[in-house]
Amino acid sequence: MDTREILEQLQNGDISIEEAERYLRRQPYEDMGFAHLDMHRKVRTGYAEVVFCQGKPDEYLVEIFKKIYEAEGEVLGTRGSEQQFELLKKELPDVEYDQVSRILKIESKDKNRKGSISICTGGTADIPVAEEAAQTAEFFGCNVKRFYDIGVCGIHRVLHNIEDINDSNCIIAAAGMEGALVSVLGGLVDKPIIAVPTSVGYGVSDGGKAALYAMLSSCANGISVVNIDNGYGAAYVATEINRLVEG
Amino acid sequence: MDTREILEQLQNGDISIEEAERYLRRQPYEDMGFAHLDMHRKVRTGYAEVVFCQGKPDEYLVEIFKKIYEAEGEVLGTRGSEQQFELLKKELPDVEYDQVSRILKIESKDKNRKGSISICTGGTADIPVAEEAAQTAEFFGCNVKRFYDIGVCGIHRVLHNIEDINDSNCIIAAAGMEGALVSVLGGLVDKPIIAVPTSVGYGVSDGGKAALYAMLSSCANGISVVNIDNGYGAAYVATEINRLVEG
Amino acid sequence: MDTREILEQLQNGDISIEEAERYLRRQPYEDMGFAHLDMHRKVRTGYAEVVFCQGKPDEYLVEIFKKIYEAEGEVLGTRGSEQQFELLKKELPDVEYDQVSRILKIESKDKNRKGSISICTGGTADIPVAEEAAQTAEFFGCNVKRFYDIGVCGIHRVLHNIEDINDSNCIIAAAGMEGALVSVLGGLVDKPIIAVPTSVGYGVSDGGKAALYAMLSSCANGISVVNIDNGYGAAYVATEINRLVEG
Amino acid sequence: MDTREILEQLQNGDISIEEAERYLRRQPYEDMGFAHLDMHRKVRTGYAEVVFCQGKPDEYLVEIFKKIYEAEGEVLGTRGSEQQFELLKKELPDVEYDQVSRILKIESKDKNRKGSISICTGGTADIPVAEEAAQTAEFFGCNVKRFYDIGVCGIHRVLHNIEDINDSNCIIAAAGMEGALVSVLGGLVDKPIIAVPTSVGYGVSDGGKAALYAMLSSCANGISVVNIDNGYGAAYVATEINRLVEG
Amino acid sequence: MDTREILEQLQNGDISIEEAERYLRRQPYEDMGFAHLDMHRKVRTGYAEVVFCQGKPDEYLVEIFKKIYEAEGEVLGTRGSEQQFELLKKELPDVEYDQVSRILKIESKDKNRKGSISICTGGTADIPVAEEAAQTAEFFGCNVKRFYDIGVCGIHRVLHNIEDINDSNCIIAAAGMEGALVSVLGGLVDKPIIAVPTSVGYGVSDGGKAALYAMLSSCANGISVVNIDNGYGAAYVATEINRLVEG
Amino acid sequence: MDTREILEQLQNGDISIEEAERYLRRQPYEDMGFAHLDMHRKVRTGYAEVVFCQGKPDEYLVEIFKKIYEAEGEVLGTRGSEQQFELLKKELPDVEYDQVSRILKIESKDKNRKGSISICTGGTADIPVAEEAAQTAEFFGCNVKRFYDIGVCGIHRVLHNIEDINDSNCIIAAAGMEGALVSVLGGLVDKPIIAVPTSVGYGVSDGGKAALYAMLSSCANGISVVNIDNGYGAAYVATEINRLVEG
Amino acid sequence: MDTREILEQLQNGDISIEEAERYLRRQPYEDMGFAHLDMHRKVRTGYAEVVFCQGKPDEYLVEIFKKIYEAEGEVLGTRGSEQQFELLKKELPDVEYDQVSRILKIESKDKNRKGSISICTGGTADIPVAEEAAQTAEFFGCNVKRFYDIGVCGIHRVLHNIEDINDSNCIIAAAGMEGALVSVLGGLVDKPIIAVPTSVGYGVSDGGKAALYAMLSSCANGISVVNIDNGYGAAYVATEINRLVEG
Amino acid sequence: MDTREILEQLQNGDISIEEAERYLRRQPYEDMGFAHLDMHRKVRTGYAEVVFCQGKPDEYLVEIFKKIYEAEGEVLGTRGSEQQFELLKKELPDVEYDQVSRILKIESKDKNRKGSISICTGGTADIPVAEEAAQTAEFFGCNVKRFYDIGVCGIHRVLHNIEDINDSNCIIAAAGMEGALVSVLGGLVDKPIIAVPTSVGYGVSDGGKAALYAMLSSCANGISVVNIDNGYGAAYVATEINRLVEG
Repeated sequence: MDTREILEQLQNGDISIEEAERYLRRQPYEDMGFAHLDMHRKVRTGYAEVVFCQGKPDEYLVEIFKKIYEAEGEVLGTRGSEQQFELLKKELPDVEYDQVSRILKIESKDKNRKGSISICTGGTADIPVAEEAAQTAEFFGCNVKRFYDIGVCGIHRVLHNIEDINDSNCIIAAAGMEGALVSVLGGLVDKPIIAVPTSVGYGVSDGGKAALYAMLSSCANGISVVNIDNGYGAAYVATEINRLVEG
Repeated sequence: MDTREILEQLQNGDISIEEAERYLRRQPYEDMGFAHLDMHRKVRTGYAEVVFCQGKPDEYLVEIFKKIYEAEGEVLGTRGSEQQFELLKKELPDVEYDQVSRILKIESKDKNRKGSISICTGGTADIPVAEEAAQTAEFFGCNVKRFYDIGVCGIHRVLHNIEDINDSNCIIAAAGMEGALVSVLGGLVDKPIIAVPTSVGYGVSDGGKAALYAMLSSCANGISVVNIDNGYGAAYVATEINRLVEG
Repeated sequence: MDTREILEQLQNGDISIEEAERYLRRQPYEDMGFAHLDMHRKVRTGYAEVVFCQGKPDEYLVEIFKKIYEAEGEVLGTRGSEQQFELLKKELPDVEYDQVSRILKIESKDKNRKGSISICTGGTADIPVAEEAAQTAEFFGCNVKRFYDIGVCGIHRVLHNIEDINDSNCIIAAAGMEGALVSVLGGLVDKPIIAVPTSVGYGVSDGGKAALYAMLSSCANGISVVNIDNGYGAAYVATEINRLVEG
Repeated sequence: MDTREILEQLQNGDISIEEAERYLRRQPYEDMGFAHLDMHRKVRTGYAEVVFCQGKPDEYLVEIFKKIYEAEGEVLGTRGSEQQFELLKKELPDVEYDQVSRILKIESKDKNRKGSISICTGGTADIPVAEEAAQTAEFFGCNVKRFYDIGVCGIHRVLHNIEDINDSNCIIAAAGMEGALVSVLGGLVDKPIIAVPTSVGYGVSDGGKAALYAMLSSCANGISVVNIDNGYGAAYVATEINRLVEG
Repeated sequence: MDTREILEQLQNGDISIEEAERYLRRQPYEDMGFAHLDMHRKVRTGYAEVVFCQGKPDEYLVEIFKKIYEAEGEVLGTRGSEQQFELLKKELPDVEYDQVSRILKIESKDKNRKGSISICTGGTADIPVAEEAAQTAEFFGCNVKRFYDIGVCGIHRVLHNIEDINDSNCIIAAAGMEGALVSVLGGLVDKPIIAVPTSVGYGVSDGGKAALYAMLSSCANGISVVNIDNGYGAAYVATEINRLVEG
Repeated sequence: MDTREILEQLQNGDISIEEAERYLRRQPYEDMGFAHLDMHRKVRTGYAEVVFCQGKPDEYLVEIFKKIYEAEGEVLGTRGSEQQFELLKKELPDVEYDQVSRILKIESKDKNRKGSISICTGGTADIPVAEEAAQTAEFFGCNVKRFYDIGVCGIHRVLHNIEDINDSNCIIAAAGMEGALVSVLGGLVDKPIIAVPTSVGYGVSDGGKAALYAMLSSCANGISVVNIDNGYGAAYVATEINRLVEG
Repeated sequence: MDTREILEQLQNGDISIEEAERYLRRQPYEDMGFAHLDMHRKVRTGYAEVVFCQGKPDEYLVEIFKKIYEAEGEVLGTRGSEQQFELLKKELPDVEYDQVSRILKIESKDKNRKGSISICTGGTADIPVAEEAAQTAEFFGCNVKRFYDIGVCGIHRVLHNIEDINDSNCIIAAAGMEGALVSVLGGLVDKPIIAVPTSVGYGVSDGGKAALYAMLSSCANGISVVNIDNGYGAAYVATEINRLVEG
Repeated sequence: MDTREILEQLQNGDISIEEAERYLRRQPYEDMGFAHLDMHRKVRTGYAEVVFCQGKPDEYLVEIFKKIYEAEGEVLGTRGSEQQFELLKKELPDVEYDQVSRILKIESKDKNRKGSISICTGGTADIPVAEEAAQTAEFFGCNVKRFYDIGVCGIHRVLHNIEDINDSNCIIAAAGMEGALVSVLGGLVDKPIIAVPTSVGYGVSDGGKAALYAMLSSCANGISVVNIDNGYGAAYVATEINRLVEG
């Protein structure tokens, strides 16, 4: 019921002032004592709430997964652990776990994927971040094309694939160390690039800040950046773009 | 002429091996002695090269503006100064300068703008960055809606405009200090947000890193970030998305 | 005995010069060999000394707890561990431990709580810091209202509770990542806000500096900030304010 | 008109659904084209909007000053310049300027000040920040006691004044370099301390981060911190506390 | 043999040119294959080489301890572990280990200590660093007076002891968090203060940089600073001063 | 086959246009599903790909080692662990592991080493980084001279060896803490110095940034720097120089 | 009058309780309205207050110089400007100014200098900082030996002078860039070294942090460090040591 | 005269012990009062001392230029200003100044250049740094090939020139912003690359640290790095390599 409906019902005498007030005030979230689940998010932003599993206390995790699964018929969690998988399986036997991406999910079977996102990595060590992005995008209904280990120290690996990479609605590029893949891609494609710096590296590149700063400083165009290792965040943006294009 | 055409002409004897080699090697850039202008960029990425005026030596600036104007019939420069405007006017009398955005340009008259981008700022001090974005996007053929000075310390200013903000293909949000506008928008819209941290502030927010880090850390979804004060970069990404959607 | 009393007794011949000197010099602290306990603090600042348990050697911890308990009839320790709880229980069987807040305490039974402090968190991961604040404030004699998991990515969760939050003498707001909750609250309430950045997050928000800087940079008014994860420090300030108001 | 009044009028047929909708949506701010003045702030938070003058374009500044002055009968601006003073005087001849605090204001004459705030500085170089705080607090209706240049390298200067400092509702302490004044005060008073790190110093203390970090790390209790040089922000918090206590 | 002696012997025909060359070139260090022990250091600087045990491979550690013990009749190691103590005991049964300071040593019995150094700490957590300093200074032949846990949040603890602290040749002050003890001492004594920032703290003071910067920025005079947690380094400087004074 | 050969064969009718296109496009890398091995690197840069073992998943590691070993007859891995050694031994029984340098390799027997590189360290703790450099350089066919533990706090250790150090084609200098060895060497030799900051140290030198910045700031000439602890990278550069000189 | 004298006079009836109280409370500082001059400092620490001129408002500067000159018969100011010199000359015609050290002073004529301090610099650009130290030490009654431009990139310049440098009570070493001079000196002398990092350099050494960190990390012994460019602070410590030794 | 000659003359009675001592001690530098010119450097390292002009006081600058010019017949200064050029011309009329590179020099006419260095830049804004490198290398006797404005956002500009770039003894690559040019070159050439981060950029790339870190983190091989904007330093290393190869 939106504001106008409430006001109409009030005018029609179908509801009292007190009821109208209550409706206007009532917020579409579920109070779980320890957490205010945002069950209305799908209506507002088009996506149900996703669970960031890392560091979530066991009892909270299970309750939140169950609540979302009941409401949505599917549920997605990122940064999950093997131990959390074991825990959730007891209550939700259909839950699946992928060790590389660390994604925990129950996904509805009859999902139609639309459009396409290209996901590239500089090296093999960036693959876990890329897979978090890839599997999130697939859960949100996108097709994903993977181009892994095509870093610029062997530039022919980028050039060879460039037309195929560009043939999608959006590109996610995950790279650690100096993250130069992003600049090279930026000069060669005409699709928006979501850059994900990864925490791969040591010395000055340890923790991902060297890659983050390089990507933000890129001399190439069409690049925007998300937090270090934030494959999920990149997939969310990419999915929004893909959905906009596919209508 | 693409590779296949070259090979066909070679096979047909229309060109010699030497000519074929030269074609394959020849790069579509203009050698100006001091700079390699990337004249082919429009073909490759859909946009002609844009001039970053700040710190460009006078003679280089004029030559580059003229070269691009000749090739494209229009030319866009960012971070220009009053003094550079005076300089360019002597050679290119049609050049225009906007003091707020610091944009220098000659724009072709008959441009049809498509789609729409919403551009928001937290305060009035962020307007120069927002205008760099807005005028770049307009130059690249987008319609722009401006929502300035709607920062979260008066949250009703965001809430009041939220449906109008969301009614476009992409949102640019420029904010300095703590940049909280981006997180609040992120929870209320379903369009991709390009966040631009600005260097507005003092103390720990001086230089824009506090805003940058806050935006990268945002608990909200659908946000990607460009370099501090990089209104141009945000507009480029937003324009790519707008163009993808509008077809 | 204050200075005037000492001087009067000297003048009256009740004490010798040497005794007067000794009194003037004697400091109200307890020398434990390894530590100078500040037993006079309650007189000076209104609060007995609180024990920061983390990293305290076992023998020191027990001695300090016993000393304060003897002098005050109650004792509060922050950042305690399960193992320290086991240790203290042997000597002080009434000691209690709360796993979430990590508070170790013996609290006198007949405490009357006065006034009220609102404690808010952005997410569920900030709850341990908020509980350190809440239980410290309760130990110091304040009533506490808890508003957890009301982060700005679902702004209605803040708006829904705003009148209730504001209906207290002081507000503590604990948030990690970009800490935008603090700015939104700052624009909506007319009570002082003590902001606590938490070390919740990863990438650029890892360790809490992104939240700290965002809170210090906040465009909203009425906000002051304590160290990262310092729930205890926030509670101390809030209690001082609450006590001032309640008289 | 609050929500209930609107609903009652709708039910009574005094207004139409469209009018009710408009009322519910209408936000109490003034749209100036370039800025959304938050004219409702005084109702919401108890204080009218204060103008941060630094870097504000001339035409904006004059318009904003006039708008607030018309609505409130007085107006306060911080970080103003001599040049801005000259500018404003032309339109608002009653405007006053203080070179030390850089405050620009028109203050209503019949203001009754209540309660009291103590404002301390470590050195003479911190006085401009302290005066920004002092004059803001006075504008907001507080009495202010000043204790300047009492830094800890001559500890007797603190000890001598400590009872007088503590005899107020709240203490603001501004210090640069290592900011140790704050820790010493924190151990001696029982009132909340708002610490303001200043950018006074050179080498590692240049810019105020050494003082900021020292204050956040203070081993003393009852201390919260605002941004570097943010005298205004400290005064705002102190004023809120003073007003709470004075009722 | 110094240069002059060598030249005289050459002139006198007591040695050949080759021998003279060899003498002039021969360096007074011991080549152990993996390490060049600086056995001549005691002659050059007055102190034998001290072993930094942390992270030293087991076999290296034992060899180096034995070599120095043979040459000097005593040996001092810092940052030792329980496990290294067990290891050394097998070969050097007289070795002693102190768990607080983590010092491993064999000390000659008949040492006469001269002069005096005062060693102060802000809290109990700084004691390990202070003891590294204290025991190093004692090994190097100084008397040490300990003033622990006299931090400025209870300023009377400093004031009470100040004459006793100042009654020595040099003062070492170890403090973590904001390190304000150093500034307060600096304003009250007339002896050189060697400040040791410690890594005690959390949030912005984690790792000791807040204390380091505060100490370097101190408004007080007579303060110089060593690396974080470097009790050994402070003791070395203090010992040099003590030795200079005592002659 | 290079471009000209392809074009000639096309002109001669030896290959079809499609074949010519395929040749021009075909890239000399091996697609392993998870990784694009750059098998052509030896041709392009003179060195086969080296495996960075740290954090490489077990199955990937084994596959990559086998692939390179098959193609090259030898294989080099850096940052290997004991556990990875055990794993590789099962499939490649000739693999060797060095605990100090953490190098895993199979090296062809009949290698002729040419030229010479001097490798110096400041202390014994820098030896693992130096050995990574030394063994990499030896694998790549250079002779290596080792000068370990010659740090500047005993400057005679440098001076004594300086002619021998300089008598090679290139010098690698690995040092932690303040890295002053590099500046001293820089003033005494006439060969290029590759400086390797190491993460040896604590407090402000923890992690190697103090050494890195010191080396980059060196007042001496002829110094260039690689990433912290990057012995491999230094060896690569040194080997290129050595090979250039030796022809 | 010390405490005992006051108490005796009270007991003897020579003073009243009120007078005794007043004496005990009265602090030996001069209240100038804007500043609390610490006139008692010479008694307490052996040195009169020194004026840090930089950024001091004109009227304050003159008043403070006059006050100290009246009390002490001489006065020392650091970081003075030509313009401040002109200003002071009008009121204090004997004031002298040195452009290199930027010291402003009136020095009493009949000063006997005792002992000796060696002051070294790495390069010529460090001389202003070294001269601030040298002239401060001379003002405080020390003899000074200058060894300028002896940086380690020509190590013979250090070695040549080493015995002369070491022949004093204390060594000040000022160096920018990587500050390696300090480490080399540390291995060669047996006197305490006060290291002064200077802000000489560019890139990563700009501002002096590279030198500061290098000096704090030094592998050599006997080194303590003051703030960047703090020649005055180094001289103060050195003077204290010199005075201790000379008695 | 080397050590052996001195000893022989002593043995032969040609010189006295005192003379021998003096010879052994005498250092080949020129004492100018304010500076110790290292006139022997050419013998020791192969290059005469180069003058860093920036910030050098006028009188020093002229003296040093004259001294070196007298000794060497030529002289090179970096980071010179127009004003310094005017100054030097008065005393040394042959001095030349280049505005782009800011090099001041008198170069001997009959110099034979050997070998070759390739110098590349990412953009036109990097040219001043590249020219400092180029003209230094030419002064030191190398041939230089320039490849300017070939940044990776138009990758064909690199690929087109790659064989020509690689056809030299050493490559210098100067780039600001994210510095990706270095990584791309690193994967394509087999010559050592000296990377020079430049301070070109804004936001997070302002000052050159983003480029520095990216270059140090590069996934490509054969790269070592010098300080930000240090074209001179890169040229020095490159020249050493070039001279080694050319013999």
